[in-house]
Amino acid sequence: MRIADLTTPALLVDVDALEANLADMAAALPGSRMRPHVKAHKTTALAARQSAVGHTGFTCATIREVEGMVAAGLGQDLLLANEVLDARRLGPLVDAGARVTLAIDSDRTLAAAVAGGVREVLIDVNVGLPRCGIAPSGAGRLADAARAAGLGVRGVMGYEGHLMMLPDVAERAKLTEEAMMRLLAAHADVGGDVVSGGGTGTYALNTWANEIQAGSYALMDTAYSAAGVPFRQALTVLATVISATAPAGEMPGYAVADVGLKSLGMDHGNPTVPGAQVWFCSDEHTTFGGDALPEVGDRVRVLPAHVDPTVALHERMHLVRGEGPDAEVLDSWAVDLRGW
Amino acid sequence: MRIADLTTPALLVDVDALEANLADMAAALPGSRMRPHVKAHKTTALAARQSAVGHTGFTCATIREVEGMVAAGLGQDLLLANEVLDARRLGPLVDAGARVTLAIDSDRTLAAAVAGGVREVLIDVNVGLPRCGIAPSGAGRLADAARAAGLGVRGVMGYEGHLMMLPDVAERAKLTEEAMMRLLAAHADVGGDVVSGGGTGTYALNTWANEIQAGSYALMDTAYSAAGVPFRQALTVLATVISATAPAGEMPGYAVADVGLKSLGMDHGNPTVPGAQVWFCSDEHTTFGGDALPEVGDRVRVLPAHVDPTVALHERMHLVRGEGPDAEVLDSWAVDLRGW
Repeated sequence: MRIADLTTPALLVDVDALEANLADMAAALPGSRMRPHVKAHKTTALAARQSAVGHTGFTCATIREVEGMVAAGLGQDLLLANEVLDARRLGPLVDAGARVTLAIDSDRTLAAAVAGGVREVLIDVNVGLPRCGIAPSGAGRLADAARAAGLGVRGVMGYEGHLMMLPDVAERAKLTEEAMMRLLAAHADVGGDVVSGGGTGTYALNTWANEIQAGSYALMDTAYSAAGVPFRQALTVLATVISATAPAGEMPGYAVADVGLKSLGMDHGNPTVPGAQVWFCSDEHTTFGGDALPEVGDRVRVLPAHVDPTVALHERMHLVRGEGPDAEVLDSWAVDLRGW
Repeated sequence: MRIADLTTPALLVDVDALEANLADMAAALPGSRMRPHVKAHKTTALAARQSAVGHTGFTCATIREVEGMVAAGLGQDLLLANEVLDARRLGPLVDAGARVTLAIDSDRTLAAAVAGGVREVLIDVNVGLPRCGIAPSGAGRLADAARAAGLGVRGVMGYEGHLMMLPDVAERAKLTEEAMMRLLAAHADVGGDVVSGGGTGTYALNTWANEIQAGSYALMDTAYSAAGVPFRQALTVLATVISATAPAGEMPGYAVADVGLKSLGMDHGNPTVPGAQVWFCSDEHTTFGGDALPEVGDRVRVLPAHVDPTVALHERMHLVRGEGPDAEVLDSWAVDLRGW
């Protein structure tokens, strides 16, 4: 199949960019120092590539992601780095031989872990991002309660998500250190082998966590590129130009591509159409202007402003090499970790 | 099943609000004066309810929506109100007995209709929204070309989407009239029985189109409510509070629900958590503050800022009546028109 044969909109993954990203990260953080976050791509076939370059432990955000990874034979060491109140779908996975470690940050989530048949937990520690995580001063008590309930406590995690996009790298490094000091203080009370944290924005700065939960590096985001993170944009959304209107009077000309709110994550704003200015997006349309607009029937590759929620809108991603419409589609992967 | 038994996040539809919305619209625009747009809910079971109250013609935005409606036995009169460059999946539907009318706005999309085996088209006319649609002055020529190519031309459509949310209703009415004058001018050159246009924001004002393509009215959007459209919010996203942090020093307390960028359409901004202030959303989290925060394990119903792209992120919607966790889930409908 050629790119021109794909139904649009379609997720395209530049296989050379992807493989370079995976190789560069595996060189920077080999083996277990990197615990790739599957929420960024929701695709077990891509996770298998990450495993092939040495990362056999993974981070998940949802129970569905954990289930899908186990089903794909990638359940060697899965961390559900999120709180859940109903863990009953996890116990059977553990009973069947998967290793599943669950984040907890309260007595309620501890109780849910026990009730769900989970055997190992991490204490999720608040390191400054106002989201999940117990205050460092409470981590030791929660770990003691978990052990008293018969659970293994593998250590701590703390995600400095509020620092990922800070434009000043020195400031990002300084604040990452402060955040990780909070995590290490908690770890001193909790014990265990795992100190998990970090992301694509801090993977090279966070030398305190002993495993990094980066996800975006594989397919990359335009926002991370703007923040100076050295990975390549691997993901675009292929679109067809379905309408074009010539300039008329004071109204400039514009074109319309068949990507929109239902094929693009929009929380970071409008997508980028290379060489053009995006005017607005509708459910299934992006209207854009510019000096050299494509013609009706042309294909364009649109860069979504945020990859993670974009991926969640698509059933498949297509691996391609090269730019033109005659370039071959090398493979097609199911985005099989969607939903909850 | 009770609401408390649902896995979160989960789409909830208040069945009384939905049925009231459908009844009110059917009273205002009975039968063929209303051509419901399925893109707003992507659910054939909901479309069947719209058919049951008298609207047997539907509007679609994608070929997948057309295919799904035909498969569900709702292919009596489907308008694909969007341009496509590859219509080859439509011809077989027509051959099998479905009525499918395709919007065209250029010679290229006309050629695609012919090549795809479509037999009937509408001329899509630009009435002021810079998206698809031919200039009114070119509509007659395109209709002639379509007829010369052997196609039936059923009439015109023109969507005044730029006017839907205008807060001043008198201004909205005046500009809708101007937009529809453009459409009627085109119709005079095109001919045919159909003059299709309008939406939830103009359904009561647009007396020039003889069928209205409203979609949002069924489940409704907070933005349309703010614009004074008299339908009820029927759709919420059920979430579980998975973490809560008490006030500490100058930092106010906050709670975290398990809905986020992957379960909420974000192009209109953050969702609403009733009685609280939303701070920010992450992939699977919404952090919110307020004076009376829920506790870990509580369920909350979150209002997405935009329903259409929210629906596209979910596999099912659950029909419920009543507020409490013990309320019964009356039915569960597959969101079966997703994808392309």
